[in-house]
Amino acid sequence: MTGVPSRAGDPALPAWRDGAAKRAILDFVARVTTVGHPDFVAPADRVAVFDNDGTLWAEHPLPVQARFVLDRIHALAPRNPQWKHQQPFKAVLEGDVAGIMSAGMDDLAKLVMATHAGMTTDEFAALVRDWIATARDPRFGRLHTDLVYRPMLDVLALLRANGFRTFIVSGGGIEFMRTFSEEVYGIPPEQVIGTSIVTRYVVRDGAPQLLREAELHFFDDKEGKPVAINAHIGRRPIAAFGNSDGDFAMLEWVTSRPGSSFGLLVHHDDAGREFAYDRDAGLARLSRGLDEGPGRGWTIASVKHDWEVVFPD
Amino acid sequence: MTGVPSRAGDPALPAWRDGAAKRAILDFVARVTTVGHPDFVAPADRVAVFDNDGTLWAEHPLPVQARFVLDRIHALAPRNPQWKHQQPFKAVLEGDVAGIMSAGMDDLAKLVMATHAGMTTDEFAALVRDWIATARDPRFGRLHTDLVYRPMLDVLALLRANGFRTFIVSGGGIEFMRTFSEEVYGIPPEQVIGTSIVTRYVVRDGAPQLLREAELHFFDDKEGKPVAINAHIGRRPIAAFGNSDGDFAMLEWVTSRPGSSFGLLVHHDDAGREFAYDRDAGLARLSRGLDEGPGRGWTIASVKHDWEVVFPD
Repeated sequence: MTGVPSRAGDPALPAWRDGAAKRAILDFVARVTTVGHPDFVAPADRVAVFDNDGTLWAEHPLPVQARFVLDRIHALAPRNPQWKHQQPFKAVLEGDVAGIMSAGMDDLAKLVMATHAGMTTDEFAALVRDWIATARDPRFGRLHTDLVYRPMLDVLALLRANGFRTFIVSGGGIEFMRTFSEEVYGIPPEQVIGTSIVTRYVVRDGAPQLLREAELHFFDDKEGKPVAINAHIGRRPIAAFGNSDGDFAMLEWVTSRPGSSFGLLVHHDDAGREFAYDRDAGLARLSRGLDEGPGRGWTIASVKHDWEVVFPD
Repeated sequence: MTGVPSRAGDPALPAWRDGAAKRAILDFVARVTTVGHPDFVAPADRVAVFDNDGTLWAEHPLPVQARFVLDRIHALAPRNPQWKHQQPFKAVLEGDVAGIMSAGMDDLAKLVMATHAGMTTDEFAALVRDWIATARDPRFGRLHTDLVYRPMLDVLALLRANGFRTFIVSGGGIEFMRTFSEEVYGIPPEQVIGTSIVTRYVVRDGAPQLLREAELHFFDDKEGKPVAINAHIGRRPIAAFGNSDGDFAMLEWVTSRPGSSFGLLVHHDDAGREFAYDRDAGLARLSRGLDEGPGRGWTIASVKHDWEVVFPD
C-alpha cells in the first residue's frame, strides 16, 4: 500500500492523467535532482511535507479520526451510564447528527478527551490499531486505510525514489496516524508530525509508562504547521502538499524558501468518484488556496481532471 | 569533527582504553546487529539517544549555553541602560558571580528570555553561529565546539557505521544546538531534540517568518526526555547515553524496552584532564545514576580510567 515502487524505467505517477499538474510535479523533481541545474537541491534538503486528511486519504464527510471518536464513545458507554443524560455524549449515543454538528469547541474537546486520554501510549496505539483494522467507511464499505489516494501514493513513491524524505504534517493526532503511516504510506513514525496531547512519564510497579493526559499539547493546523515543521524537522521543506486553507500557511512557508520549491493543493471536485467540497466545507474549506494559489505558483490538482484513478483497487 | 570514520578494518572506539565499558559498548553493538542473534534488532529500530551537555561536550563549571546568555547580556547592555539598575541583569553586568548563582528560577528565566526571544528563528541562528565561532572556554582557551568528548564521537561513529540513527535529547536549546550539531557531531537538525521556546508564524511585508516568543514551550529534561523522545521519534530507542540524574528517566525508559538495550553514564572523575563533579554538582548532579545504574545493567564510563583521550587535539 505504499504506491507503485518506482524502479528505473517505470513511468512515474501512473495514476495521474497527462496534464499541467502531472508535468509540474515531474518538472520540479527533475530540476531539483539534476546535478548542475540552477535549481539543484542537495539530497539532505530534499524534504517534502504532506497534509493527511483530504490530501493522502479521504476526509469527507467526516474525518476518519472523528469516526474513531464516535465509535469509542459507543464502546465506552456501558462504563459511563451518566452519558445518557450528559451532552455532548447524549447526542453521540442517540445518533443526533444535528446535535453533534452544532456542538461547540468545548463539547468537541470533551468527546476527544474522553476517547483519547486516560491510558498509556501503548494502550492507545492498540485501541487505534484494532479499530483501524475493522472500521469501514459507510459509503464505500471499505477500510479507511484502503481509501487512500492512489495518485498521492505515486507522488510519495516518486519523491522517495529521487532522494526525498517524506513527512506528514497534519492536524490529526500524531499517535493516531503513527499506528498505520509506515505500512500505508511508507512514512515512519519519526516523520509523522501532528496534533498532540500532553503525555506524562510515570513508573508503575517498576514499569515506566507514558500516560496520555486530558490536555492539548499542540494543535498542528494552519499557522501551527510551519511552527511544528520548524520544531520537528529544523529545515524548511522544499515541497508541500495539502488540500485546504488549513494548509495555506504550510505551503506559504515552504514556497517562500530561497531557491526552488513546490506547492500543490488537491481540489476535491469529483462527487461521482469520491466527494466534491471546497469553499463551503467548514473546517476542510479550500477557498483562499484556490484564489491565491495559482498566482503564487502553486499547482491546483483537480481530482476530476488530473486523477485517472482515485482509490486503489 | 565527526569522529574517526569507521571503515571496515579500523579498530572501533580508538579513544577508549580496553576495559569493561569499552567491551560493553562493542558487545551490545555486535549482538543487536548480528542477523540470527537472539538480541538482533532490525535496522529501522536502531535508534540511539545522547544527552549533550556533559555527555557529548564539556558543561563544567558552566554550560556553554549559559555562557552565551551572559555574553549576550553584555552585548545587549548598551541598548538596555536600565539593566544597570535591575536584577538579575545588574549582577551579570557587574560580574557578580555569587549574585548570579543565587538567582532564582524567575530571574534566570528573565536572562534567558532577554537573550533568546524577540527575534526570528533565522536571526537567532545567526547570533548563535557568530558566537560559537569565536567564544572560547576560559580554562582551555579553545572554542567550545573543540571541547567535545572524542570518545563519544567514536561512539557516534561506531553506531552509525552499524546502521544506527543517532539523536541528541538535551535540556539545552534545540535551536542553539542545531546551529552546530551536524558539523560537530554528524547529527542533522531533525535528529536534535531539546528545550524549546514558543514560536509564532507571521507574515511581514509579504515575507513569512517564525518569531521567537518570550515563553517556554517545552523543557526537555528529566521526565521530559522520554516524553520528548516519544513525541519526536515515536519509537523507543535501544541505546541511551547521559551523564547526570537529568538523564535517569531517559535511560530508564530506553532500558525498559522489551528486547536488548544499552544505557551508559559518563562519570566525570578526572579533574586533571577536564573536570570532576558528581554528587554535589547541583543541576548536573550524578548520584542516583551511580547508585542504581550498575544494578540496572547500565555501564558507568569513568573519564579517568576508560578514556585514553578526552578532547580532540
